[in-house]
Amino acid sequence: MSSVTSRVPATRRITARRQATRDRVLEAASEVFAERGFHGASVEDICERAGFTRGAFYSNFSSKDDLVLELSRRHSEALVERIRAASKQERARADEMLQAVFAALADDTRSKEQWLVLTTEFTLHAIREPGARRAWAAQQRRVRDELVAVVDEAVARQGLTLPMPTDVFVRAAIALAHGSMTQRLVEPRSLTVGELERTVLPVLLGVDA
Amino acid sequence: MSSVTSRVPATRRITARRQATRDRVLEAASEVFAERGFHGASVEDICERAGFTRGAFYSNFSSKDDLVLELSRRHSEALVERIRAASKQERARADEMLQAVFAALADDTRSKEQWLVLTTEFTLHAIREPGARRAWAAQQRRVRDELVAVVDEAVARQGLTLPMPTDVFVRAAIALAHGSMTQRLVEPRSLTVGELERTVLPVLLGVDA
Repeated sequence: MSSVTSRVPATRRITARRQATRDRVLEAASEVFAERGFHGASVEDICERAGFTRGAFYSNFSSKDDLVLELSRRHSEALVERIRAASKQERARADEMLQAVFAALADDTRSKEQWLVLTTEFTLHAIREPGARRAWAAQQRRVRDELVAVVDEAVARQGLTLPMPTDVFVRAAIALAHGSMTQRLVEPRSLTVGELERTVLPVLLGVDA
Repeated sequence: MSSVTSRVPATRRITARRQATRDRVLEAASEVFAERGFHGASVEDICERAGFTRGAFYSNFSSKDDLVLELSRRHSEALVERIRAASKQERARADEMLQAVFAALADDTRSKEQWLVLTTEFTLHAIREPGARRAWAAQQRRVRDELVAVVDEAVARQGLTLPMPTDVFVRAAIALAHGSMTQRLVEPRSLTVGELERTVLPVLLGVDA
C-alpha cells in the first residue's frame, strides 16, 4: 500500500484524507440527527460520535446547517440517480416505467422517514433564518432542475404529454411524496407506501398504472 | 345587562365565562406560537400574554399539546365551512365552483402560513410522542372525513367522476396545499398562492379550470 500511496501526489493524498474525515463526520451527524433531531443535536455531540475535535469539525464544515446541506446534496443525488436509472429502462411501456420509478422511490423506507423528519426540521429552521433559507432554496431548485430533465426525457421517450409545466409536475410529485410519508408517520397503516404519488401521477401522465 | 344575566341559569353563566377564558388563552397561545414556535413557547409565556395564572390555564387545558389540538380543531372547522360554502354555489359550473373553492382557500394567506409552521412543528412533535400522535391522527381523520363528505356531494352535484377513492383525493389535495405553502415559504415568488392544487386538482376532476 505504501508504495501505491507514495506514487499519489501529496495534494491528492490530502484531499482523500479530507474526504474520509468529511465522510466520517457526515455519517456521525446523520446518526445523531436521527436520534436527537436537528435542534437536539449539537456540534459537540456529532464530534464525539465521529471521534473528532471541534477543530477538525470546523476545518471541514462551517456549521450544523452546512452538514444538513451536504447530507441533503448526497441524498438527493442518489435519489435522482435511482429515478433516472428506473425511468430509462429500454423497451419498458409507460406503466412499467412508472412502476419501476415508484419501486426505486419505495426503497429504503425507514431511512427515508428519518430523512423526511430531518429535512422538515431544517425547512422550519430555514423559514426563520434568511441565510439557511437561501441555501435551502438553491438546493431545492437544483434537485428540481435535475428531476425536470429526467421527466422531460422520459415523457418524450414514452410519447406522453404533461398537462402542466414540467417544473409544476415535479413540485407536485415532491409534495405528494412528502404528504404520503408524513401522513404515514402520523397514521401508520392508514395508507400504503407512496400511495398518493402512485395514485395521482399516472392520472396526470395519462397512464393506466 | 344584569337583568338579562340573572335570567340565564348559573351553569350557563359559568360555561360562558369558561368559554371566554378559553378563548383568551387560545388567542394568546396563537400569538406566542407565531412569535416563538411550538417548542419556543412555554405555558408561562402564554399565561403571561393572556393575563392568567398557571392555575387558570390548567383548569382549562391539560397541556401545550391540548392548545394546539383545540386551535387546530377551530381552524379546521372554519376552513371546512369555507370550502363547503364555496362548493355549494347554486348554478355554478364545475370550473366556477373550483375557482370559488380555491379563492376560499387563498383567503388569509399570512395567517395560513403561520398556521402551517405551527402544524408542521406539531406534526414533528407528534411523530416522536405516541400520545400526541394518536390525538393528532384522530384530528386529521375527522377533518378528512368532513372534506370527503363535501367532495362527494360536490362531485355528485356536478356529475363528475373521481379517478380514485375520495379519501385519497382529499389526502392528495391536502398534500398539494401543504406543498404549495411550504415551497412558497422557502422560495417566495417561485410559485403563486395555491399553484399546485390549482393546477393538479382540475386535472384529477376532469375540469378545465
